[in-house]
Formats: sequence, C-alpha cells, structure tokens
Amino acid sequence: MKLKSLLSTAALLTVFPAAAFANDPPSSMEDVGYIFTTLLFLMAGFLVFFMAAGFAMLEGGLVRSKNVAMQMTKNVALFSIAALMYWLIGFNLMYPGDWIAPGFLGQIFGTMTWLEPVGLASADASLDYASVGSDFFFQLVFVAATASIVSGALAERIKLWPFLAFVVVLTGIMYPISGSWQWGGGWLSEAGFSDFAGSTVVHSVGGWAALAGAIVLGPRLGKYKDGRVNPMPGSNLALATLGTFILWLGWFGFNGGSQLAMGTVGDVTDVSRIFANTNMAAASGAVAALILTQVMFGKVDLTMVLNGALAGLVSITAEPLAPTLLQALWIGGIGGVIVVFAVPMLDKLKIDDVVGAIPVHLVAGIWGTIAVIFSTEASLSIQLMGIAAYGVFTFVASLVVWLLFKAIFGIRVSEDEELEGLDKAELGMEAYPEFAKG
Amino acid sequence: MKLKSLLSTAALLTVFPAAAFANDPPSSMEDVGYIFTTLLFLMAGFLVFFMAAGFAMLEGGLVRSKNVAMQMTKNVALFSIAALMYWLIGFNLMYPGDWIAPGFLGQIFGTMTWLEPVGLASADASLDYASVGSDFFFQLVFVAATASIVSGALAERIKLWPFLAFVVVLTGIMYPISGSWQWGGGWLSEAGFSDFAGSTVVHSVGGWAALAGAIVLGPRLGKYKDGRVNPMPGSNLALATLGTFILWLGWFGFNGGSQLAMGTVGDVTDVSRIFANTNMAAASGAVAALILTQVMFGKVDLTMVLNGALAGLVSITAEPLAPTLLQALWIGGIGGVIVVFAVPMLDKLKIDDVVGAIPVHLVAGIWGTIAVIFSTEASLSIQLMGIAAYGVFTFVASLVVWLLFKAIFGIRVSEDEELEGLDKAELGMEAYPEFAKG
Amino acid sequence: MKLKSLLSTAALLTVFPAAAFANDPPSSMEDVGYIFTTLLFLMAGFLVFFMAAGFAMLEGGLVRSKNVAMQMTKNVALFSIAALMYWLIGFNLMYPGDWIAPGFLGQIFGTMTWLEPVGLASADASLDYASVGSDFFFQLVFVAATASIVSGALAERIKLWPFLAFVVVLTGIMYPISGSWQWGGGWLSEAGFSDFAGSTVVHSVGGWAALAGAIVLGPRLGKYKDGRVNPMPGSNLALATLGTFILWLGWFGFNGGSQLAMGTVGDVTDVSRIFANTNMAAASGAVAALILTQVMFGKVDLTMVLNGALAGLVSITAEPLAPTLLQALWIGGIGGVIVVFAVPMLDKLKIDDVVGAIPVHLVAGIWGTIAVIFSTEASLSIQLMGIAAYGVFTFVASLVVWLLFKAIFGIRVSEDEELEGLDKAELGMEAYPEFAKG
Repeated sequence: MKLKSLLSTAALLTVFPAAAFANDPPSSMEDVGYIFTTLLFLMAGFLVFFMAAGFAMLEGGLVRSKNVAMQMTKNVALFSIAALMYWLIGFNLMYPGDWIAPGFLGQIFGTMTWLEPVGLASADASLDYASVGSDFFFQLVFVAATASIVSGALAERIKLWPFLAFVVVLTGIMYPISGSWQWGGGWLSEAGFSDFAGSTVVHSVGGWAALAGAIVLGPRLGKYKDGRVNPMPGSNLALATLGTFILWLGWFGFNGGSQLAMGTVGDVTDVSRIFANTNMAAASGAVAALILTQVMFGKVDLTMVLNGALAGLVSITAEPLAPTLLQALWIGGIGGVIVVFAVPMLDKLKIDDVVGAIPVHLVAGIWGTIAVIFSTEASLSIQLMGIAAYGVFTFVASLVVWLLFKAIFGIRVSEDEELEGLDKAELGMEAYPEFAKG
Repeated sequence: MKLKSLLSTAALLTVFPAAAFANDPPSSMEDVGYIFTTLLFLMAGFLVFFMAAGFAMLEGGLVRSKNVAMQMTKNVALFSIAALMYWLIGFNLMYPGDWIAPGFLGQIFGTMTWLEPVGLASADASLDYASVGSDFFFQLVFVAATASIVSGALAERIKLWPFLAFVVVLTGIMYPISGSWQWGGGWLSEAGFSDFAGSTVVHSVGGWAALAGAIVLGPRLGKYKDGRVNPMPGSNLALATLGTFILWLGWFGFNGGSQLAMGTVGDVTDVSRIFANTNMAAASGAVAALILTQVMFGKVDLTMVLNGALAGLVSITAEPLAPTLLQALWIGGIGGVIVVFAVPMLDKLKIDDVVGAIPVHLVAGIWGTIAVIFSTEASLSIQLMGIAAYGVFTFVASLVVWLLFKAIFGIRVSEDEELEGLDKAELGMEAYPEFAKG
Repeated sequence: MKLKSLLSTAALLTVFPAAAFANDPPSSMEDVGYIFTTLLFLMAGFLVFFMAAGFAMLEGGLVRSKNVAMQMTKNVALFSIAALMYWLIGFNLMYPGDWIAPGFLGQIFGTMTWLEPVGLASADASLDYASVGSDFFFQLVFVAATASIVSGALAERIKLWPFLAFVVVLTGIMYPISGSWQWGGGWLSEAGFSDFAGSTVVHSVGGWAALAGAIVLGPRLGKYKDGRVNPMPGSNLALATLGTFILWLGWFGFNGGSQLAMGTVGDVTDVSRIFANTNMAAASGAVAALILTQVMFGKVDLTMVLNGALAGLVSITAEPLAPTLLQALWIGGIGGVIVVFAVPMLDKLKIDDVVGAIPVHLVAGIWGTIAVIFSTEASLSIQLMGIAAYGVFTFVASLVVWLLFKAIFGIRVSEDEELEGLDKAELGMEAYPEFAKG
C-alpha cells in the first residue's frame, strides 16, 4: 500500500529494505522485455488459475444435486494438492536442474521449487526469459487443469480420498514426467513433436487418466440398464454455462501465455493472434454443436453446445498461433463435431464419463494435435508418435495406479452411498439443503 | 511452455522457427508503446469477453426457471455467432479497407478479417497503434454485447432460431454499418458526434433492436392482464447479482480499453481516470436506485439496484474520461434514477422487457450520450442528431427484420410451449431438473 | 474505439483534442516505469474489485435461502457506498494532503478526491510512482473488502439500513483513520509495524468491526438452544465455492498490487514471488482444513475447506513477499488449522458469525501479522502493539457505533421478520421464488 512521501527514505529502508528502490525505472530495454514477459505469465497465470473455478462450476452443474458438495470439495482440494505437489516435486521433475533448495533441504528434497531472492537485481535475472516465480505459477496452474479433467469424468461414484491420492500421483509425478518429454526439452521435443499449449501434454493426459479411471471404476448405478442409456441430467445448467464461460476466459491465458514472451512487437502480435484464434475455435465449436444437435436430434442440446465450445478450445490448443482465422474456424468446428459423436460412442462402450471430459479433452485433444500439421510443417507421423507416447504412458500408468488403489483401499463408494449421494454419505452435508427434490 | 535452456538454438529453430527470437527485448520506444497498447486491447478484450458470462447470468437469474436453459443456450450461441459474423463481414464493414483476405478468398469474401503474419517484424507493424489481432478481438467482444442486450429483453417467448438469425443480421451487418458512422471515421464522427465507448453505438443500438423486437413479439402471456401488470419474478437473484458484478468488472475493459492507447504517461493516466469514473458511475447508479426504491416503494428493490448499477455504467460510457469524479457521480446517479422510472413506464406501454434491458441500455444510453456535453465541448444538437440517427436506423432496420422473420417463419413459440417453458418445449431439457417448483 | 486512419489529424484534433497524441511512444524509461506501475494498480484493482462478487457469492451461499436476496442487496450496496465514501472523505483522510478539490468545493469538502487532468504530461506526473486515478481505484477496492467482512458475520438478522449506515462510518472514517497509521505514513509505520497488504489493516479491522456487531446484535434465533449449537447450513454450497475461488483470484491483485511498483526487474520478480506465495498459502490452508476435519470429525467439511483456503490467504497477506514457498506453506497451513478451531470456539462464546468471517479475517489476520517476524526483521512486540492498536480502536469505535445505532433506531429485525426471512420481510422478494423448500 502507498506509503506517504513524507516518510523519509531512511525510515523506508528500515521498514521495507527493498522499498527504497521500488519505484526506479527499468534500466534497459532488456529489463523492459523481461518485465513484459513476466507480466504475461502473471496475467495468463491468474486467468488459468480461474479455470479451476470454471471446472468446478461446469462439473457442479452437470452432476446431480446429491453430489454437488462433493464435486466442489474435490475441485478445491485437487487444485490445492496440485499446488503443493507441483512445488514439492513436479516443477523440478519437469524442468530438471533449476532452482534447487539450498543446504539441508536441498539434499532431502532435491526437487523442491525455490524462487529468486526478494529484490532481484537486473544483473542476476534471466533477462531473456521471465522471473522463476511467474514461470512456476504459470506452470502450476496448468497441472491443476489436468487433474480437473479427471474429477469431472469420475464424478458421482468415486471416493474422495482415493481420488485425491490419484491427484497426488498425477500432479507430482506422472504429468511432470511426461510433460518433460516435450516442454522440458526431452526426447519428443527433440524429435520435432509440436504441442504449443498442451492439447496433448495437458488435455489428452487428463483425458487418458480419466479414461483409465472410468474403466476401473465402472459406470454409475443405473446408467446402462437393459441395453439402454439412462440419461442423468445435470442439476444446474446455469452453473454449467458459467463454468464454460470461465473456462473460455481462462483459455486466453492458457494459450496466450504459452507464447512465453511478450517483449517484442512480434511476440505481442503473436499473443494477439492466439487470442483471436482461440476465441474463433471456441465459437466455431459451439456453433458446430448447435447446428449438429439440431439436425441430428431435432433439438439443440445445451450441454453439447457447452462441450462443443470446450472441444473447440482443446482443438486449437496444440497450435493456436500458426493457423489463420479461417483455419481456426474449421479446426475448432471439427472439435465441436467430434464431441457430438464421441459422447454417444463412449456410452456405447459403457464408459461412463459424467461431464463429457473424455470426448472434450482426450478425443478433441488428439484431433487438435493432428491438426497442427495443417498450419505448420510438423510431421503427421511424429504428431501421432507423440499422441501415442502420451497415451500409452498415461493410460498404463493411470491404470496401474487405479487398480492398485482399488486393490488396497477401494475407490468406489458403496451402492447405498451412491444412491444416497456422496454429499450426505461421505461429507454429511448437502449443497442445496433447502431445495426440495422434484 | 518453457523449453529447457539446454535445448540448443539450432534445435529450437527447427521445432519453433519463431521461438529463437522469442525473447529478444523491444528494439525501440515505439515498440514499447505498441506493446503497451496491444496489451491494453488484450486485457480489456478478455474483460469485455467475460461480459458475455455476465449477461448470461443476469438474464438467467431474471427469467423464470422454466426458461433458464434456453437463456443459457441463447447467450452462448449469440456470442459464438457474433464472433463468426464479425470476422466474416462485420469488422471490415465497420473499418473498411484493412486486412483483406488474399487471393481467391479475398475475391469472394472481400470482407473476411485477416491477421498479421506470425512473428511480425517491428518494421511492418503499425507502431503508432496496436496489433490487428488485438484490435479485432477487442472490437469483436463489443459487438457481442449488443446482441446480449437483445436476448435479455426478448426472453421467455422468442423462438431460438429466429433469435439467432436476428443475431446474424445484427452483428454481421447492422451494427457494423452504424458503427462505422462513428468509429469507422464516418459522417457522424466527422460531424463531431462524441461517443467514447459506446453509450449509443453499442448500448442504445442493442436497446433499439430489443425495443423493435419486443413490440413485434408482444408481451409474455399473462404479463398484462385486466389492466394490471403481473410481476414475474426472476428465478435466481444470486445469479442475477453475480451477472451484474461480472458486467461491472467487464466495464473496466469496455471503457478503459476505449482509450485505444496506453503507451504514454498521459494515456495510462487517462485509462486510470476512466477506471475511477466508471466505478463511480456504477456505484452512484446503484445507490440512487437503492434510495429511490426505498423512498418510492417503501422497500428496496434488488433488481432495481442491479439495474441501477448497470444504468450508471451505460450512462458514463459515452464519456468516461473527461468528467470529474463528481460529474461521474451525478451522471451515473441520474442513470440509476432513470431506470427506476423507465421500467414501470415501459410496462404502462405494455412493452414487455424481461430483464429491463431497454431502460438500462437504451434510455440510460441516450442520457449518457447527452451528458457528454457537460464535460466536453460536444454540441447538444449534434449529440441529439447522433442519437436520432442510430435510433432511426437501428429501430427501423430491426423492425423490418423482425416483421420479415415473423412473416416468413414466425418468431414466437406457441402458447402451450410458452406456458410449459422454452426449456422443455424447444430444448427438451431443464436447467434445474431436480428442484421442485414451489 | 478505433478511428479510421483516413481521418485526418486535423479532424481528430477537433473531435478528440487529446486523441492526436494518443499513440505516441513513451518518452523515457521513467515513463515506462510509471506506465508499468500504473498498469499494476489497474490490473490488481480490477482483480480486487471482483472480490466484491466473491464475498457476495460466498455469503449468499452460506446463508439460508430466505436471506439470500438481502445478502446480495447488502453486498452490492456496501461496495457502492464504500466507493462514494472513500471518494468523499476516506482517501484523503488516509493519505492526507494530496489531491484536494479546487476552489469552492475544496473549501467545503476538503477531503474530496480529485484526479489528475486528462492527458497528463509526463513532466507533471509522479514518475516515480503511478497515476492518482489508479492508486485511488486500488485503495478504494481495499476498503470495500473490509465492509464485506462485516456483512457476512452479521447476516440473517441485521436490518438493511443500519448496516449500511455502519458501512458509511466504517469506510468513510474508521478504516481511513486507522489505515493512515500504517499506510498513510503514520505512527505505526514509523514505529516499524509491518503489514504488507493488510492482514491487520484490512482483514482484522473488518473482523473487529464484525465482532463488535455480532456481540451487540446477538445470535440468530434458535442458533444456541439448550446449551447446544444448532447448525444452520448454507443454502448453496456451489455458490459458496464459486465465491471462494473468486476471492482467491482477487487475492493475487490484493497482495500482488501491494508491491506498489512494477517498473524494475526486482519489482516484477517480487510481484511474481507474491503470486506464488499467495497461492501456496491458500492451497496449504485448504489442505490443512481438509485433513484436519477428516481427522477430527471423521468427515471432510467443505465449508471449513473453503474457509481454510481463505484463512491461508489472510495469513500470508501481512507478508506475502519475504517468505519462502516453504514458509508460505506453513504460514497458510496454520491459518487453515486456526479456522477449524476458532469456528467452534466462537460458538462456545455464543457469538454467531454466519459465514465464519471472524475466524478467517480476524483470528487468521492476527496470526498472519505475527508470522511476519519469521521471514523479516519485524519485531514481535511491535507487531503485537500494532495488532492491539487496530483491535482496540476498531473494536471500541465499532461497539460505540453499533450501540448508538441500536439505541437510536434499532439494528435488528423483529423475531417474526427473522423467522420469515429478511428477503420477504424487508425486501418483499425472494432470491429463489420457484424452488420449493425441502
């Protein structure tokens, strides 16, 4: 907060040692570039952070009211756990070699993230990049998105603690390991795999983990009965719509921040391009689902429209920069189409994905990763190799973890608890205690 | 995402041809100014984008529960359609001559928006302005706001597809044409009409289109019966309040971004002034409605307070920069007063505006456009001429389109469908399927 | 909005006198630093503004449905009143001597805030700080947070107008006076008290005012009966969760903006550090409450988890910069633990705090202010003196005001009105009129 100017510099130096230098100007253009890029990470970071609320609202709106409090609990908890695990292990596992804890702690927890000192001097900064704190924050909010994807798919029947235990493994170990292949300068990056902001690295990874979980967990009671799919409508579509808008908002940070630089005319123009393409793909995905559900079912399906927008966003995430707006239009539009077909397909396989997370994040994520070849010189075979590598690793590792958890302490609530709802059964509370059930 | 520094520059150049230059510093102060202004558009743009969620929540909270899913569908769809239409036609219609598609496409769709190439060089940029992508994105989110205004007023009885067809015309043609008169450097701008961020160009245009629609469509069944106004309370005032706060938030981008520059001390100080004035007008509008409803009705009316804040915001939008805070106080306050009187007046005319969009956006928009004369040298007669020009054009064009649509395919659901609610009738779903009706 | 380039400079000068210079570049590095810091205030300011929505949703979710519309009304009104009062009196009372209204007004309202002129020249700006408008906006949204804290604690039984009258006093006089002790360069600041972003100056002040109010007002009917605490569950935990996420988002601005500078490598790196620490403390507070409620009660308590996150945020607010991430972890975690113990403790004292505002903002605020000594050279005794000074002043002054209000016009609704709910009784409306009560 503002300190009155009459406060002497000497007093200032006593109270806030750094404050005396607080309002100096940048000392060089290199400083200015560093400030811009760091600011990009902070701004993009808080936008992506807000996606945690978006996922929570989307999922809270699409589950039945008896499971809403649990879905809220899971979403707050998974973000918090992701934040702790990514700090403790993930960040340095994904980007090895930097920012190790000093001394005793460094020897025990060699992976713990450490930030630059307060009042960093220009001479000590990575002026050609950004502050470690902003980079860490930006990366951290990405990993949380991966965990959110899983929480939606497995809603309404998974126990709280086994789910959170999976989040520990996913955000602390699995995601950082596979993430390092591409963004940590690993083998896939060297092979020429291209995934700008994470259609594969983030979204399909979340989708694969969710898929493995959904298979091990099995469908909700009564979902597939006598060969029919029993619809279980979401309890609050206003909330689900809000969640979708928040995710759409956050995606400007997700893709825009992945430019990783804002210090030049070219960079900020590229970020603008990414904003415009991201928005176009979302809009196009929504319109595609709007038209397609009208044509196919004779009625527009709001949840498909919401998922269409999200699928459009996932589709453009692997390459939001290079496409023209016209390309973004059809890349996102195909994402929307994919969702409309993939949702019933999953149901045919009796894989119960409560919110449509697998079609949106996994299937459209694969599509988006392939679509990179249309706007860049990326090779189809290498894109497919990357998709397969992430798929095999994440699916198998997740399957092992889920099966292990199932064997050791069980991952699913009892039938009675599921029928009663997780809110009462596991939490002893209700999200909407006063609204009578119709 | 971050690439490890051990990745060689050569490898970087292979994978991401542009990445090798990613973290250069700005090369001149002109570059820095361009980056600041582009950043302003991006930041303001995502704030205005989020207003789409604000409108959706406000409207979703003020309609009855049987129409909430439809209101959500309309709001997601209208934003998406606006994004497509403004790209396909609107932007270049409003700001003619720039950014034409090259080659074959350019000859067919001469209006399609085209962005600058990836990695734009400083020498090729409009260093005295901002990137096309950021400008396009910023303009695009404005046009969507116009369409949102219409969706609120016509809620609970208009059919989905005719509404969306109107959005196509409004966002692709009508708004861009009239917008170009002022912001495209057209005749009104040359005549000296003053509308900084769009009290008239955006808000009253939405209001006029809504008014024409409300007249053609007629009131909801049972709204005006035996000479009495039958109140139809909104189903979720928490949601409506959330929507209002989101709109208020977005308005900082709406008005602040309309400074169109952030590269100098004067510009960023002006943006600050705009933030402070915008907030003051909203607060003042809310307090005015708070006090006035207490005095007039003996009870505070929450929906009036919410609309009072919004009317304050609309009122200051025509000139958020020049007024002192004291002027912003009474400009916004009068906006709040206007709403309290205009809502019952519309009801007397049996014009059924479900959410109060016409009082807020049209009536307060006119007031705000007139109020410009108190803080600038704008001429009252030219302000009135501008208001009239937008009114006549938008109202007449909208009336023609609505009447045409009505004649061709009908714009209103059947009585049975209206009574059942649009959610079940048109979408076959419910927003709150589990909450029993009281 | 964009003016076409074909518009001549001469015409531009006529229409928008300032516009012709709009797109100049910065003229010096001092300008660039000023723009960055002003931008920090604007960005942080809109994030903190959004906390008003966060408080509204949190409180709206935690009260019973019959009081939701009232809680919305109070939150919109308190923000608006805070904005007016802080402009009229508060800002210049807190930071005396600056920006006095000129001429006649200045003599009557010597405290009214006045902004810099439009198009401020670089030579006239405080280049080593930021624009007055951005600073005023940033400070204004802080004071509103204080008032929001009170509104949550006293929900469900306080009358609307007495509450708003208290907000007038709190935001116009009490908060600015005590705020000036520290941030206005007053005696506490000179004594070496340390409170970076306001664990004490903002949060505990709100908590003390709420505590005094809760004592004078008494508990809700039936809350403490026959020696037992009667739980009154919140009506909408999805909304409460949304509110928590919005507050968490806003806190990046709250703490990050309190760096008060972004013009150097050191400053922006510090802001990054603050973001990372703030997020860590919130996550850690949530996880602490998650584990602790499981261990203590055998079930996770969602509202405790939400309040745990908020308590973590409050705890780190007194010093979000200096701690390492590891310190932020346990500072925030202890905040989460505090909430789990303080909530039942308050109940034992029969102090009825509807949303847990006193544990979160007062108790964790005290803890956070003490915790400063672990990461800086602040002295424990001076920290305790500051805590006591704010406590005594705010509690006593609030108590006097509450007792005065109680004596003059009464502050509590009648028993009948309380049972019926404030929405119907005081507002004559319902937040959820269609949802049957279960």
